[in-house]
Amino acid sequence: MPDATRRSEQSRRAILDAALTLLAETDYAKMTIEAIAARAGVGKQTIYRWWRRKGEVILEALTGQATPVVLPDSGDLEADLREVVRATVAEFGDPRLSATTRALTVEMLSDDDLAGQVRDRLLRPQLDAVRDRLAVAREQGQIRTDADLGLVVELIFGPIFHRWLLSNGPLTPAYADGLVDHVLAAVRP
Amino acid sequence: MPDATRRSEQSRRAILDAALTLLAETDYAKMTIEAIAARAGVGKQTIYRWWRRKGEVILEALTGQATPVVLPDSGDLEADLREVVRATVAEFGDPRLSATTRALTVEMLSDDDLAGQVRDRLLRPQLDAVRDRLAVAREQGQIRTDADLGLVVELIFGPIFHRWLLSNGPLTPAYADGLVDHVLAAVRP
Repeated sequence: MPDATRRSEQSRRAILDAALTLLAETDYAKMTIEAIAARAGVGKQTIYRWWRRKGEVILEALTGQATPVVLPDSGDLEADLREVVRATVAEFGDPRLSATTRALTVEMLSDDDLAGQVRDRLLRPQLDAVRDRLAVAREQGQIRTDADLGLVVELIFGPIFHRWLLSNGPLTPAYADGLVDHVLAAVRP
Repeated sequence: MPDATRRSEQSRRAILDAALTLLAETDYAKMTIEAIAARAGVGKQTIYRWWRRKGEVILEALTGQATPVVLPDSGDLEADLREVVRATVAEFGDPRLSATTRALTVEMLSDDDLAGQVRDRLLRPQLDAVRDRLAVAREQGQIRTDADLGLVVELIFGPIFHRWLLSNGPLTPAYADGLVDHVLAAVRP
């Protein structure tokens, strides 16, 4: 790798690391491109070479951090869904993680292009992993053949998002379990 | 009513009417307190006497416009839900109404106090109306007794919101009907 390319790659990496560090330390609303640049030891213009706005830096940082999403497959759909849904509900109930979700949601609602990126790079892999697990269950006869798996994924995640957005009730393991119970009742053969 | 009170009430009404008119004509993002004041024929300070920010004016205007929410009760839960869910899906699919929802959602995510007001004054009456209709159906034995009606309301509206936010699929009558089918399968005795 030529030196310039390597230096460039190092700056990029430093910026993404700085973004994640700041995200863990500060409110997203208070984060600025300036603060990310200062923490990464680069100039503001270096950031604008690659990204148009804060939301894009954060998205790329979060995407890079994400591990490949594969759902547990214990053979027991109910147990596997319970695990995933409990984890998701806990994430929405966690004030710090929730602050990031809140920020990304505002960015999505303000910028269609960014919304598409968040969907395709950050959320779709997670939603598809659940859909794939449901497809396996359907092949095994644990889900009725005419269930719409895309819709079932929305039945799982939509209510959590709705409750989180409206602060309409507790985000607890009991809530997660109740949700799984109702969704499974909808799709059982 | 003393003259001053009447004049004050007239200004208030003019401001709310102006907000609704502008909302129908302009992008919410481009609406300003100045524009609302100009359209209402009042000074900016008159608006700030009653409201802190644009989102609050819009919320009050929309709340005032809302008719009391009562769900149809034809005796046939499936038919009634189909009607409501089709109407809701159409609303989210309508670019102009959707722009208002987008704006209110951003305001909710930015201001907890306003979020509570939107929930309690604008959304809760609608969600409660669906819940009440479900309660009647449960009494009539059309829904299993252990169904969690608050959760069922989220199973209906959460997926629509999720699909709308992520632009994850079409918002069509067929989608609405499929959603109702799955939700009813979850709660049938």
